[in-house]
Amino acid sequence: MDDSWLDTVNWTQDGLVPAVTQEAASGRVLTVAWMNREALGRTVETGEVHYWSRSRKKLWRKGEESGHVQKVRAIRLDCDKDVVLLEVEQVGGIACHTGRHSCFYRKLDGGKWVAVDPVLKDPAEIYGAGR
Amino acid sequence: MDDSWLDTVNWTQDGLVPAVTQEAASGRVLTVAWMNREALGRTVETGEVHYWSRSRKKLWRKGEESGHVQKVRAIRLDCDKDVVLLEVEQVGGIACHTGRHSCFYRKLDGGKWVAVDPVLKDPAEIYGAGR
Repeated sequence: MDDSWLDTVNWTQDGLVPAVTQEAASGRVLTVAWMNREALGRTVETGEVHYWSRSRKKLWRKGEESGHVQKVRAIRLDCDKDVVLLEVEQVGGIACHTGRHSCFYRKLDGGKWVAVDPVLKDPAEIYGAGR
Repeated sequence: MDDSWLDTVNWTQDGLVPAVTQEAASGRVLTVAWMNREALGRTVETGEVHYWSRSRKKLWRKGEESGHVQKVRAIRLDCDKDVVLLEVEQVGGIACHTGRHSCFYRKLDGGKWVAVDPVLKDPAEIYGAGR
């Protein structure tokens, strides 16, 4: 398959691009993570979002442990070609490792960050007691 | 004013944090840019979004040239405290320097990036002939 569309992306010196992931139906921004060339390629091939974990230095299929897979609806690229926007269906309705819908659950309110979104499922239940 | 909420943010080694800016009414992701401590502080103080330009190495009030100011409706922080999400009202309906609503105007379609959103105003008209 012709993958010249991957060459269009302005990868960082480390070969990464930040990816903003948004729930297609609600418009809610779920998470921001990193992709390398392989992660973005596999995301398109499989229709399921793959990221690059900078801390674990490995490719990571979102939901591989939790089952909270992200199914791709559309992929966009910004004017500078250095940020990717993924429009997805969030399986299970939980994107955050804290068991919340979105990773952006803290809101600035009166000079304080307040957790405004509920935990929908206990992370111990999502990932098992080992985590 | 107590600004300990700024200490909560996990700034990069360069003292920056990526900011995803989303139109509050439509849910459309408009742009992704960088903020330093001063930019985020001023954004909260003034209610208008300020970014840090990495290329020009200066504070930049969004819309200072174009008039396309972003008025803050809410500010969120993610689980890792290293990405900020701004919910804004986009004055003039144009966030992108190309004259489009959003910077994410390219969509992957059949293995090609296609510009799917229209130019709403000629950039020469927005910024003057000098640019």
